[in-house]
Amino acid sequence: MKINENYKNLAESYLFSTIAKRVNAFTGAHPEREIIRLGIGDVTLPLARPVVDALRAASAEMGEKATFRGYGPEQGYDFLRAALREEYARRGVSLEENEIFVGDGAKSDIGNILDLFDVDNTVLVPDPVYPVYVDTNVMAGRRIVYAAATRENGFLPMPDASVRADIIYICSPNNPTGAAYRRTELQAWVDYANQNGAVLLFDAAYERFITEPDVPHSIFELEGTKTCAIEFCSLSKTAGFTGTRCSYTIVPAALERGGLRLNAMWLRRQTTKYNGVPYIVQRAAAAVFTDEGRRATGEAIDYYRANAAVIAAALDEAGVWYCGGRNSPYIWMACPGGMKSWDFFDFLLERAGVVGTPGVGFGAEGEGYFRLTGFGDAEKTKIAAQRLRDAIAAL
Amino acid sequence: MKINENYKNLAESYLFSTIAKRVNAFTGAHPEREIIRLGIGDVTLPLARPVVDALRAASAEMGEKATFRGYGPEQGYDFLRAALREEYARRGVSLEENEIFVGDGAKSDIGNILDLFDVDNTVLVPDPVYPVYVDTNVMAGRRIVYAAATRENGFLPMPDASVRADIIYICSPNNPTGAAYRRTELQAWVDYANQNGAVLLFDAAYERFITEPDVPHSIFELEGTKTCAIEFCSLSKTAGFTGTRCSYTIVPAALERGGLRLNAMWLRRQTTKYNGVPYIVQRAAAAVFTDEGRRATGEAIDYYRANAAVIAAALDEAGVWYCGGRNSPYIWMACPGGMKSWDFFDFLLERAGVVGTPGVGFGAEGEGYFRLTGFGDAEKTKIAAQRLRDAIAAL
Repeated sequence: MKINENYKNLAESYLFSTIAKRVNAFTGAHPEREIIRLGIGDVTLPLARPVVDALRAASAEMGEKATFRGYGPEQGYDFLRAALREEYARRGVSLEENEIFVGDGAKSDIGNILDLFDVDNTVLVPDPVYPVYVDTNVMAGRRIVYAAATRENGFLPMPDASVRADIIYICSPNNPTGAAYRRTELQAWVDYANQNGAVLLFDAAYERFITEPDVPHSIFELEGTKTCAIEFCSLSKTAGFTGTRCSYTIVPAALERGGLRLNAMWLRRQTTKYNGVPYIVQRAAAAVFTDEGRRATGEAIDYYRANAAVIAAALDEAGVWYCGGRNSPYIWMACPGGMKSWDFFDFLLERAGVVGTPGVGFGAEGEGYFRLTGFGDAEKTKIAAQRLRDAIAAL
Repeated sequence: MKINENYKNLAESYLFSTIAKRVNAFTGAHPEREIIRLGIGDVTLPLARPVVDALRAASAEMGEKATFRGYGPEQGYDFLRAALREEYARRGVSLEENEIFVGDGAKSDIGNILDLFDVDNTVLVPDPVYPVYVDTNVMAGRRIVYAAATRENGFLPMPDASVRADIIYICSPNNPTGAAYRRTELQAWVDYANQNGAVLLFDAAYERFITEPDVPHSIFELEGTKTCAIEFCSLSKTAGFTGTRCSYTIVPAALERGGLRLNAMWLRRQTTKYNGVPYIVQRAAAAVFTDEGRRATGEAIDYYRANAAVIAAALDEAGVWYCGGRNSPYIWMACPGGMKSWDFFDFLLERAGVVGTPGVGFGAEGEGYFRLTGFGDAEKTKIAAQRLRDAIAAL
């Protein structure tokens, strides 16, 4: 028996447990202080009414023999794939239903898609980065190279012709930085991928936060993408499904490598190692893409956007550099006074009672930066923003 | 870019599509004939009342800010893991909660667990076999050897000391054959695994159908299993969750290979590539393990068992050899008159209007055998059993 030794190369992930420990220690020493958490990227508003209604109606269907559903298609029910196809069509992206795969989360699909690629490939990830892109490849033993996202490039690295990469991760709007590629910038990545035979893995989990017309919601809005890109999107942030679990992955029919169609490979992977999203959840997901569902989930997005704007305004007043917040629920700020990420974490906790996420936890290039999120409660976010501004002003 | 070339070695899976084509051709030619389907292993009874009530109550919780749940623990909520721990304790198996992982399906976990093992391992699967065990390993490029399940060994192959295997699949009660290992037989596999440093992957998906006391429900009822076995079980058949999706996987804390703890590896795999089962589904699953839930889901199991007994009685009357049906919803019958699997498929469709599954579709050793299931409607199963007996009698 040979175990997968690559697991020995995984860095232990202490980021959120370290945060929890420091916060617990602080609240233990200062039980009177009210702590406001703007650290973790999880939604806080409840599911929209049309979604809950759909869950309850589908649950009732499952309780009657005439309407009960057993195994469904692994790649998702036609009613949901049709709704997603229509959703893409609304922004001018034409897809076939068999290019759309319903799944239980972008994280699952982003990890599992790697089954389709040989270990002997070079992976390009930005730094700082959502740790899943790195860890899933370390587990398989692939070579990883980093594209530095820095203040100089607006935390939006561009392709480097001297770097040879086979699998390229792009998350736009970005987690953790909130930065979002414009059309021409993203096109440069598409052109690089096509020229090099690479595959772009495009994470669109935060697309619903985009407000500016020049920022693509889908990579498939660009030219030449159906021969080089796979897109992952999720209802987690779009409709508050972090605890309900539904996502979708687009694998174009025209995408081929080494004589194999990736769409057919992914279908085979999913039918072999997966059994689909619960029927009731697919009904709930379809409710998101009705007029009423769009309106109700859009209100939640607006609520989080307003929170991000409140934080951004406080940083503007404090004269602190940041990116994100405009097309994203995340704000990525430079730590004031040249503080390192963890120093600013402690400073903000002690002086303002506000919890955020140290940028260095997402990669070496994140040192000196800090992530705040708009996913909190509106009233608490206003208080936190004021405390943040005051703490920085007192420096 | 190097694609995973192993996908080229996958045999196309035509079994159920071929069945569908032949049935469609027959019904097209004979629209007046009533066809009864006893082919596919999917449940037909609705979710039990306590389960539907739990789904609806949890859906309502998700619609209120005070009770909304976002991201849950990837390995499952404590309330469900505690219920599962208690369920195991009821049959004398002592587990820690962190040895229990909630997932969306035994098929997913059985496929994904392979991430933990090197490609350079030899896999032992029975023949005939649930195709997932084979295909998931072909995808990764592992060596596969087969243990012949035959009428001579009651379709329960025993370990062969001359065969060196690292990863061993056991499904008991078995899909497709319905055969179930007794305690001493299963212990021989456990001893083999411990002696050879192999890992047993034990698929207990059909355990709820066991009626005989000498057939273990869990591999962990046996001695020495916590150093060599991983168990997969599902609510798909236990509680009709094929369209609702919830399963559980037991990875003992004491199971180590190559200096790594498989429990810690699986936790890392799941936290990196998975986001857990929907909260509402976990609440529904917990409802299965209440007194009311056990009673209601037990009634469905009894219903399917009675169907299997009706089919078995017809085969007894017809003097046809079969196994299964006693501790399993599946009946695995020898095709009468020395017919091959597909010949009997056509015979049964034409003469009796009954659809089953050709045994050869599950492996070469399945040739000459045929699978029928107890998952159908009770009245229709009675009619089908009578037609089956009459058709064989007329041979």
